Amino acid sequence: MRYHKIPDETVRRLPVYLRGAMHLSQQGLESISSRHLADLLGVKPWQIRKDFSYFGDFGTPGVGYHLESLIKQINKILRLDAGQKAVLVGVGNLGSALLAFPGFGMYGFEIAAAFDVDKRKIGRRRGGVVIGDIAKLRNLRRRGICLGIIAVPEDTTQEVADTLVDAGIKGILNFSPRYITVPKRVKVITIDIAMDLARLPYYMPLS
Amino acid sequence: MRYHKIPDETVRRLPVYLRGAMHLSQQGLESISSRHLADLLGVKPWQIRKDFSYFGDFGTPGVGYHLESLIKQINKILRLDAGQKAVLVGVGNLGSALLAFPGFGMYGFEIAAAFDVDKRKIGRRRGGVVIGDIAKLRNLRRRGICLGIIAVPEDTTQEVADTLVDAGIKGILNFSPRYITVPKRVKVITIDIAMDLARLPYYMPLS
Repeated sequence: MRYHKIPDETVRRLPVYLRGAMHLSQQGLESISSRHLADLLGVKPWQIRKDFSYFGDFGTPGVGYHLESLIKQINKILRLDAGQKAVLVGVGNLGSALLAFPGFGMYGFEIAAAFDVDKRKIGRRRGGVVIGDIAKLRNLRRRGICLGIIAVPEDTTQEVADTLVDAGIKGILNFSPRYITVPKRVKVITIDIAMDLARLPYYMPLS
Repeated sequence: MRYHKIPDETVRRLPVYLRGAMHLSQQGLESISSRHLADLLGVKPWQIRKDFSYFGDFGTPGVGYHLESLIKQINKILRLDAGQKAVLVGVGNLGSALLAFPGFGMYGFEIAAAFDVDKRKIGRRRGGVVIGDIAKLRNLRRRGICLGIIAVPEDTTQEVADTLVDAGIKGILNFSPRYITVPKRVKVITIDIAMDLARLPYYMPLS
């Protein structure tokens, strides 16, 4: 089942809600009001109510949102409930940090394969996976891998994206500050760390 | 001058526009239509027109937006025109990747200092800065540093945030998947890479 009418901005906040709800559930809470959830996440209460209105009705007046239902529903909408396997291309500093990153498992993600061009790295084990030769990257879909993470230098980004698309990847998380071109059926999310940093000064006091 | 009425979602897109405009300007273009800019950035044309309406009037009918004015204006709104200095805390894999990251300079950022707890790292030069002892982190404002980047393990995140606030930091970019508490005057932007990955499956074809 797909929920087609959810706006991109709401989809962007769903993992934020999911993370907040999991955090509160782990603390032993059963439900939370939109106001308290808003305080925790730095989102406006009306925004939460509007976002949640796209996918059903969790709220009980005077009680709030039932956390377990909320977690289940968001996992279902984002299709995280099945578990998702990703391939990492580029095992430099950033790639190594990603392989060691504890946060992926929280959302049902697993980096199931990693590739590099560096012969000194190929064959080594890092974060539970053996680094493969990028020249041999193919048939990822047969291994159940649909997501790709690109953490290579800027000038090889497009080439790696092409290789991933040929290998059957349907979604790409791109860490390179370079625009990449892929077929329309492939979704790309670019993380440019500098762009997030660039928003900070706007919010800082002028003093 | 501050532009107080720009919504957060628009502020979030400003660096995206800035990056796109700089890219096109470097390619030799002088102006661009909202439709072409939308194609490049994966944003809807009406969204661009609405976002730009908050801060002035760049568009010339039939010609489009003047890129140089656009770049100048966004830099001014985000207060990037003065240049911004940041301190990095935590020089592990992620921190090292950040120190080597070429994208910061593009927005006028400089990582001017880096700190760690590891005695083997302290005193070493990495990416142009000498890694300092975190126990000696103080008086950053005197050095003109207002931004902090936290790339430490989860369990020390709050402690590092407290140290940065005490040292005069006004904005924090947090890479740890841990909620941190800071005084209201300090702005925190959290980058949870797993949350960005978590949006991808929603957009992928079901086949």
